[in-house]
Amino acid sequence: MQPNGILTLLSDFGLSDVYVGVIKGAIAQINPALNVIDLTHQIPPQSIAAARFCLMNAYAYFPSGTVHIAVVDPGVGSTRRAIAVEFAQGYLVGPDNGLFSGVLSQSPAFAAVELTNPQYWRTTALSNTFHGRDIFAPVGAHLASGANLTQLGENIDVNTLVQLDVAPVRITPSIIYGCIQYIDGFGNSITNISGSYVQQHWNVIVNGLHIPGSNTYSDVVAGNAIALVGSHGYVEIAIANGNACRQLQLKLGTQVQVLIR
Amino acid sequence: MQPNGILTLLSDFGLSDVYVGVIKGAIAQINPALNVIDLTHQIPPQSIAAARFCLMNAYAYFPSGTVHIAVVDPGVGSTRRAIAVEFAQGYLVGPDNGLFSGVLSQSPAFAAVELTNPQYWRTTALSNTFHGRDIFAPVGAHLASGANLTQLGENIDVNTLVQLDVAPVRITPSIIYGCIQYIDGFGNSITNISGSYVQQHWNVIVNGLHIPGSNTYSDVVAGNAIALVGSHGYVEIAIANGNACRQLQLKLGTQVQVLIR
Amino acid sequence: MQPNGILTLLSDFGLSDVYVGVIKGAIAQINPALNVIDLTHQIPPQSIAAARFCLMNAYAYFPSGTVHIAVVDPGVGSTRRAIAVEFAQGYLVGPDNGLFSGVLSQSPAFAAVELTNPQYWRTTALSNTFHGRDIFAPVGAHLASGANLTQLGENIDVNTLVQLDVAPVRITPSIIYGCIQYIDGFGNSITNISGSYVQQHWNVIVNGLHIPGSNTYSDVVAGNAIALVGSHGYVEIAIANGNACRQLQLKLGTQVQVLIR
Repeated sequence: MQPNGILTLLSDFGLSDVYVGVIKGAIAQINPALNVIDLTHQIPPQSIAAARFCLMNAYAYFPSGTVHIAVVDPGVGSTRRAIAVEFAQGYLVGPDNGLFSGVLSQSPAFAAVELTNPQYWRTTALSNTFHGRDIFAPVGAHLASGANLTQLGENIDVNTLVQLDVAPVRITPSIIYGCIQYIDGFGNSITNISGSYVQQHWNVIVNGLHIPGSNTYSDVVAGNAIALVGSHGYVEIAIANGNACRQLQLKLGTQVQVLIR
Repeated sequence: MQPNGILTLLSDFGLSDVYVGVIKGAIAQINPALNVIDLTHQIPPQSIAAARFCLMNAYAYFPSGTVHIAVVDPGVGSTRRAIAVEFAQGYLVGPDNGLFSGVLSQSPAFAAVELTNPQYWRTTALSNTFHGRDIFAPVGAHLASGANLTQLGENIDVNTLVQLDVAPVRITPSIIYGCIQYIDGFGNSITNISGSYVQQHWNVIVNGLHIPGSNTYSDVVAGNAIALVGSHGYVEIAIANGNACRQLQLKLGTQVQVLIR
Repeated sequence: MQPNGILTLLSDFGLSDVYVGVIKGAIAQINPALNVIDLTHQIPPQSIAAARFCLMNAYAYFPSGTVHIAVVDPGVGSTRRAIAVEFAQGYLVGPDNGLFSGVLSQSPAFAAVELTNPQYWRTTALSNTFHGRDIFAPVGAHLASGANLTQLGENIDVNTLVQLDVAPVRITPSIIYGCIQYIDGFGNSITNISGSYVQQHWNVIVNGLHIPGSNTYSDVVAGNAIALVGSHGYVEIAIANGNACRQLQLKLGTQVQVLIR
């Protein structure tokens, strides 16, 4: 896989401190010509599940050969592995905690290494708390600049990469049972039910409420609940000009039924 | 108009999700060499008026030939037109809902097209809810890479572009009547009264309060209200080291009088 | 000092308005090939102390020759000086209010000028309130493009640059007395006590609470307080998976003792 010079960053660092800026500096110290693109830095603190969902829904929109650095890392300083993975569309760099299991469920890993070669880290003293700056950013910058995956550390079996369990969907002839798996900044609540299951006539039941399946936000008047296949490709519950999460009291894991005919 | 390789982005998508990152990926898939600059992604949700004001006050600070993509789009999926406009300083791409009427009141449109040619969209299935990713970002990237406006769709009469009505200013020999048209993140409340009307001696009356016209924040002690010609070129009401919006109970549309001598 | 084409930006402008976008436009009007990196724009409004700390902890992670523009500027429009400084690692551009005194305590100034030459400002009318756009961004862009420091204005004695007083650390054989100097977005509370003072066995006392010194967040179970040498190199008080600032009622200036053996 030929790198294309693009690096993306995803983290829970927020934007109120200089952590993200420092990561970009550490990348520029290695190769100032790289093109660094923020996915988001506002993953809820330490939410590996949200990070997994976001990265899974973003990677396919980048050119082949992009390096994705993702740092939501509650286990930093513990024995969790730091890894780099080569897959069909590019590279993944970050902690081995399930963060990448969504991407890799769609586009399988070709090879993976544990980041054990300090030659590709920052040369100054390693922090116990900021591997984003000291390991993942430099390793990502080297990969995006053409370093070979196998130089970065010891090969590991891609079948040993940590998986994050996601609630399964149960399908019957007339009802699909799922749950809310992500809530976006507008309060739109995204289920784990693929949009490919729903056709012309369908409804959603959530918290006892029946919501008609529809095509687009403007199909209902402002303030009304609507279910539609969102831009992620999943069934999503929204309120036109409103906040479905707050107004319908939805949260991660809330059960959702889709009635199909 | 020769494009210069710079694209700006303005939206109400916020930064807590990957929507903005995905738009940048979609642009990079078309031309990774483009220079993408965020104006802001924190327009209040679906506030076309705020987006209009922000874009009107930003475009002139970019080099000639810049492409501005703006997506505040409550009508996505309805029959509202998706458009691209060529004007004296560059290009505008987004929904035809009045978003661009501020820019075009200062710098007139040369030509406009409705974005009806799917060759310039993403080739995968079109989302009904995320035209920023599927139409506006690719079209903007193609324009910034040299595509001809007329290739993007059918010509439309620039006089048919949607205008957003803004409250007019009324001028008498001693008083100018206007209102608050934008409130920034500091609570500074910006009127629709041009700074060109005020000279050496002037005062503002708002919510029954008389506020002296001044030159700069440091002309008053911390905590005091002040009126000045802000960096946008409009009369603005601020509180030194404070929040005028909250402390003076200002909101969009609050009436303001400027007394001149 | 040869510039490297990289400019960083640090401010208290926030991201909800177009102020930062406009600064980037003003830079692109001078040289669109420059590489502009945000450190943060969410410094607490007008907090020179927070800006000083953040810049001091970020500059060393950028390549030599980087230009750092920092605008936290409560005195804009007053007689405070606008300055540019050349130091061992690059250039600093902004108001002379102590913002740069942290960087310069670690890496001394070589030369400084007051920005009195309007040839390097925006040519349109100067705003009294937005020198970030009208003076600092253009000057920074010119410096990063190769302009000579001495062309930008009159030389000033580097010993006259404004210093920001930071509470001193007091050291005894068994106790180091310091205080909280910065609180990050996670509530981690960073003292002014260098990590170089603490070795194997140490404890922190703050607000009557004894907290064990440790190596990394994962050394304690979730919800427990921990003291460690943070990524900034200072003793830092955190709560694993929690918010130390809120839960331990820490604030800027709260006194901290480190007990060493």
